[in-house]
Amino acid sequence: MRIGILGNGQLARMLALAGRPLGLDFAFYSPNPDGCANVLGEHVCGGFHDIECLGRFVDSVDIVTFENENISQFTLDAIPAERISPPAVSILTAQDRLTEKQYLEKLGIAVPEYCVIGCEQELLDALHDNREPLIVKTRYQGYDGRGQARIHTVEDVQTAWLELGNNDLIAEAMVKFNREVSVIAVRSHGGEVRFYPVTENHHHHGILIASVVRRNDPLQAKAEDYTRRLMEDLDYVGVLGLEFFDYNGELLANEFAPRVHNSGHWSIDGAVCSQFENHLRAICDLPLGDTSALAPCAMCNIIGEYPALPDILKLSGAHYHHYQKQPRPGRKTGHITVCAHDDEAVSKMVSRIMKMFGQG
Amino acid sequence: MRIGILGNGQLARMLALAGRPLGLDFAFYSPNPDGCANVLGEHVCGGFHDIECLGRFVDSVDIVTFENENISQFTLDAIPAERISPPAVSILTAQDRLTEKQYLEKLGIAVPEYCVIGCEQELLDALHDNREPLIVKTRYQGYDGRGQARIHTVEDVQTAWLELGNNDLIAEAMVKFNREVSVIAVRSHGGEVRFYPVTENHHHHGILIASVVRRNDPLQAKAEDYTRRLMEDLDYVGVLGLEFFDYNGELLANEFAPRVHNSGHWSIDGAVCSQFENHLRAICDLPLGDTSALAPCAMCNIIGEYPALPDILKLSGAHYHHYQKQPRPGRKTGHITVCAHDDEAVSKMVSRIMKMFGQG
Repeated sequence: MRIGILGNGQLARMLALAGRPLGLDFAFYSPNPDGCANVLGEHVCGGFHDIECLGRFVDSVDIVTFENENISQFTLDAIPAERISPPAVSILTAQDRLTEKQYLEKLGIAVPEYCVIGCEQELLDALHDNREPLIVKTRYQGYDGRGQARIHTVEDVQTAWLELGNNDLIAEAMVKFNREVSVIAVRSHGGEVRFYPVTENHHHHGILIASVVRRNDPLQAKAEDYTRRLMEDLDYVGVLGLEFFDYNGELLANEFAPRVHNSGHWSIDGAVCSQFENHLRAICDLPLGDTSALAPCAMCNIIGEYPALPDILKLSGAHYHHYQKQPRPGRKTGHITVCAHDDEAVSKMVSRIMKMFGQG
Repeated sequence: MRIGILGNGQLARMLALAGRPLGLDFAFYSPNPDGCANVLGEHVCGGFHDIECLGRFVDSVDIVTFENENISQFTLDAIPAERISPPAVSILTAQDRLTEKQYLEKLGIAVPEYCVIGCEQELLDALHDNREPLIVKTRYQGYDGRGQARIHTVEDVQTAWLELGNNDLIAEAMVKFNREVSVIAVRSHGGEVRFYPVTENHHHHGILIASVVRRNDPLQAKAEDYTRRLMEDLDYVGVLGLEFFDYNGELLANEFAPRVHNSGHWSIDGAVCSQFENHLRAICDLPLGDTSALAPCAMCNIIGEYPALPDILKLSGAHYHHYQKQPRPGRKTGHITVCAHDDEAVSKMVSRIMKMFGQG
């Protein structure tokens, strides 16, 4: 079977690394000639609006999947619905923060308070009405903390408007959450859903830096319930990640990703079957794999420059995942998973690695 | 770092799958245009006696390693000693059954009784002298039971001589062993040696079909002692597999492979750090990884036709490793690793898989 992936970055790369041992072949569609997935399959260099080139790509593979939800309706319309998995509706829903929140609310999934911002005055009004700090976000294209601004004062409103005002915006109440958690789930063609244990996620300047697996977390069941509702309503097939704020034991959904998710990278070494293999199993209509964690574990992202390989490899239980990307500040270039006998040992290893990275 | 591998079969493929996450690049040197490793790096198509082409290949990589010990002295002479790892002497020793046995004996490692056979009469004499069945083997190039014949009678001598008589031969006493075991070890540039737990190996028509990990095997220490002697004397760097007959609790060395070994494939899913990653760590002078088994586990080879993917993937704890090779009778085309909570559950899964393959 030949899998066509829209995109050739690290998620496509890790899908191919997981899929080669299943006997799957891979092709990547992207205008980027240097994507780090290219070494693992055929790269078809084409633009996402070059419908003719994309059409040939789609015809050359058995199933199309993707590593990024920023795919336009125009592009999606060029792919027959039965040839893309997860379904296009999940992309269109997730890529717009407003549609996404409305969709989650419709399913009875709690989200932080929010409002649409059409002009600077509306942002001032929102700050005034809420009497709480706000976070203003572009509806489209934001990631890793980009396209966001925090609003505490009237001056912040002006700065944010200058920076983001020419985008469609929403403003959210800045939730004083206890922690951020996410759950990764996989759903089959037949409607079977399996969940990985939730992770607690830690960010630095808006970028995920560490995810720690929380087996037996008290919010696991609630997170699963919400995620199941979402996947069933979307008639979803594949892996999906749903992020939450834990606000005094209540789960408020932040956003979902209709794809393999950074907070699930621990599963390569820490679960019986990784999120990457399970995504491929699901979209190829193969039996789903076991989502259990093998041991207490966590994942630390490498942002920018690579650490010295020996420094990481000398840590027993650490697994290095280099994406073979050119380092740039703020760019995710790899990750490290750590497994240990107990949660405390995992925490210590995470702290040690974060210190190495100057994020301790 | 760019790793050059002589050969582009499944061992080269699995080395590359293990090495990409370490950020390593791969190039494969082989006259075979269709090697299953080619999808994971650059394939340089050249003959092993095309010294000019090979020289350019060697110059284009940081270190040369190999997946097969049948490399001639002529070819090895074209590679500077400091550029190949494991060392050339390990190849030259392992590729000739006579040199190999003499080397093992010199180190005090017991081997089955054997003698050199130069003509049909010597084979008859050997049968007569031993009064036991013999196994006659070509000194060079034998694998998966090829280049071997069993000798019980005078008629067997004639048949064997017709088939193998134009090769250099040795005859061995056919040991009535209790089981076949092997140990996989890795040695660093600095001389550190780590051992995987021994496996018990099962063959069918001379081809390995299953390896079952035996944690806490009573012969582990003896197997380690022998393997350490061998690696130290060869000043070995990388992974090595040493096969033994367990003859009433005594270990008789059968042969060694100066490379990653089929009986260590379980380590991809069953050990903290696989034999493939550890081989790369060793030859790149990186810290060695943990060789501990994560759980009771085993490996079953796929010989010839592939089983239906869903039949394997529905087994919880099974991991599929498809080599993307054209199936041919007697050809190793993949393997399946199984992990479970206890040895009995592993045994049951192995039996179930063997039955699926018609080898139960």
